[in-house]
Amino acid sequence: MSEVTPKPAKIMVSADDLRALVAGIFLARGSSEADAATVASALVWANLRGIDSHGVSRVPRYLELFDKGESVPGAVPTVERPRAAIAIVDAHAAPGPVALTVAADEAISGARAAGVGWATVRGTVHTGAIGYYTSRVAAAGMAAVGVVAGMPNMGYAGARGAAVATSPLSVAIPAGRHEVVLLDMATAVMALGRIAQLKAAGKELPAGVATTRDGEPTTDPALAAVPVPVGGAKGAGMSLVFEMLASGLAASPIVPAYHSGRAEGRRHRQNAFLLAVDVSAFVPLAEFAAGVDATVDAIKALPPADEAQEILVPGERGRRSAAERAAIGIPVGAKAWRELTEIAESLDVTAQRQG
Amino acid sequence: MSEVTPKPAKIMVSADDLRALVAGIFLARGSSEADAATVASALVWANLRGIDSHGVSRVPRYLELFDKGESVPGAVPTVERPRAAIAIVDAHAAPGPVALTVAADEAISGARAAGVGWATVRGTVHTGAIGYYTSRVAAAGMAAVGVVAGMPNMGYAGARGAAVATSPLSVAIPAGRHEVVLLDMATAVMALGRIAQLKAAGKELPAGVATTRDGEPTTDPALAAVPVPVGGAKGAGMSLVFEMLASGLAASPIVPAYHSGRAEGRRHRQNAFLLAVDVSAFVPLAEFAAGVDATVDAIKALPPADEAQEILVPGERGRRSAAERAAIGIPVGAKAWRELTEIAESLDVTAQRQG
Repeated sequence: MSEVTPKPAKIMVSADDLRALVAGIFLARGSSEADAATVASALVWANLRGIDSHGVSRVPRYLELFDKGESVPGAVPTVERPRAAIAIVDAHAAPGPVALTVAADEAISGARAAGVGWATVRGTVHTGAIGYYTSRVAAAGMAAVGVVAGMPNMGYAGARGAAVATSPLSVAIPAGRHEVVLLDMATAVMALGRIAQLKAAGKELPAGVATTRDGEPTTDPALAAVPVPVGGAKGAGMSLVFEMLASGLAASPIVPAYHSGRAEGRRHRQNAFLLAVDVSAFVPLAEFAAGVDATVDAIKALPPADEAQEILVPGERGRRSAAERAAIGIPVGAKAWRELTEIAESLDVTAQRQG
Repeated sequence: MSEVTPKPAKIMVSADDLRALVAGIFLARGSSEADAATVASALVWANLRGIDSHGVSRVPRYLELFDKGESVPGAVPTVERPRAAIAIVDAHAAPGPVALTVAADEAISGARAAGVGWATVRGTVHTGAIGYYTSRVAAAGMAAVGVVAGMPNMGYAGARGAAVATSPLSVAIPAGRHEVVLLDMATAVMALGRIAQLKAAGKELPAGVATTRDGEPTTDPALAAVPVPVGGAKGAGMSLVFEMLASGLAASPIVPAYHSGRAEGRRHRQNAFLLAVDVSAFVPLAEFAAGVDATVDAIKALPPADEAQEILVPGERGRRSAAERAAIGIPVGAKAWRELTEIAESLDVTAQRQG
């Protein structure tokens, strides 16, 4: 007797409902109302932009980190400002969205005072999609650069197994007529989340995106374990120097601790930095924005490689997804939805829209 | 009757002799003594590190730019400091090494005052290897990030032909026992200089590194014209946002001007930025350096993919080249050497070692 398992349907949920549900869960678990709203906003932003691997499906993982004491729902990040342009945000194990939102605001105020502002984040967990924080800086009329360093999960040119993290880089540039230009990329050929999706679906991977745990190239979704750095030594090198900048300035190097063989070295944590550049200190913002618009126009007017394919600038695909999902709702996988609603029920959180 | 052309030999020249020769040429062409020494130091540094495409072979091109008035040998860069952490260096068409050395020092003094320092460079020409300037910042005990934006010469995901520049990114991290970790990479799969070397040698290119002028993938050295961005949309996106940051903050966007169809838009120029981070404002420098050392040690101790191949960190290969070439001399191609010595002769510069 064989069973046929139908492909589970996606549940369409409005962004407001999803935010209310996630905020309710974090509030019930001990986050302040403001922090719960911040986490919900960051995760649902990722879903809206189509980056579902960094969205609400991560909620159970945060709660697991709360249970283990590796993250603290009510932790209040503290801020030192040793010099005018820099801030050190100690997350005290607060969730990433809470710590990085503080950091974004600190980077902005540093930039307002000194022209550029740098905020280093020490000891947070899962930051979600880093483009959320660089977008926050861009909304203040500033350019932004952001980097997150985390647990090694990517290969390194010439080595076997997980060596460095897929450390994402995000750059946000405010425009005028056009929307913010938003680069948000992993230093891997293919982001871990996308590989996980293909693995879950049992689909063969493209060549060159992953190796087995032992470092052998593979396209088999069952064996793929370690993402390959983009451009070999380039992606590996970027990830390594990003770790040195993010974790080194946070006085908390992750890579040597991870490879030390000590259990403590494998405890999940992330460090980060955000840089804000106050455009108006260099050039009138309107002039800068006009230049960005002209640059976007020039790129989109290039002869296309394929006449049927529009040429896109960074962030355009995500923005279109956000417009569509704001209108028709966010498709949440059946498993993720079941997990979320079961958690909500166990915490007496109603899945009803709150505002 | 057929002629056999022997492979032209390389001429071995000491770094000191090469610096003296290049400095003599720039001095004779109107650079100040200090600026001539700066240009010579930057170009010979690239040769020492094995980046010959960015070394003394570029001298004729600088002189051509002087002849056309697109670069000005005696130009004195001016510096504005609108806020504590930022400087705007207007190169007034001074050669890249002159303008970027000023910028490196401005970034350092901004970082000393405010924790981080950002220097934007407007309107220079050929910067040489950008790692030279981030290394200068690292020598001051600071971390550095540097980006150069130049004339479009690289493809863009989904477009045909040259769209954006191969905008290099360099990150330099001071270490303790180890040498500075120095990433210096183009946003192309293969740097233009390396492609030019293979083309000159008539050697087939690896697949995926270049297209024809019309955007067709090719491995034919005769047809290869446009380098492919690393990781497709990733490299293209990095190059685009680097241009927006470097050229936008310099109030001199290159990409839209280049594609405007106006002759002025194709006039060679480069913009750049350098960021210095004063490590000691975050964490004692010795502690930071120990963390970098431990990170380098962890990477080099990873299980190698190939037992016969050592795992390298960014900058290690270049440093070994520099040690070797400092000892045995710099191999200069016969053509480049002939050009250099002919130029020197025409300017009554003696090729003798001066110091």
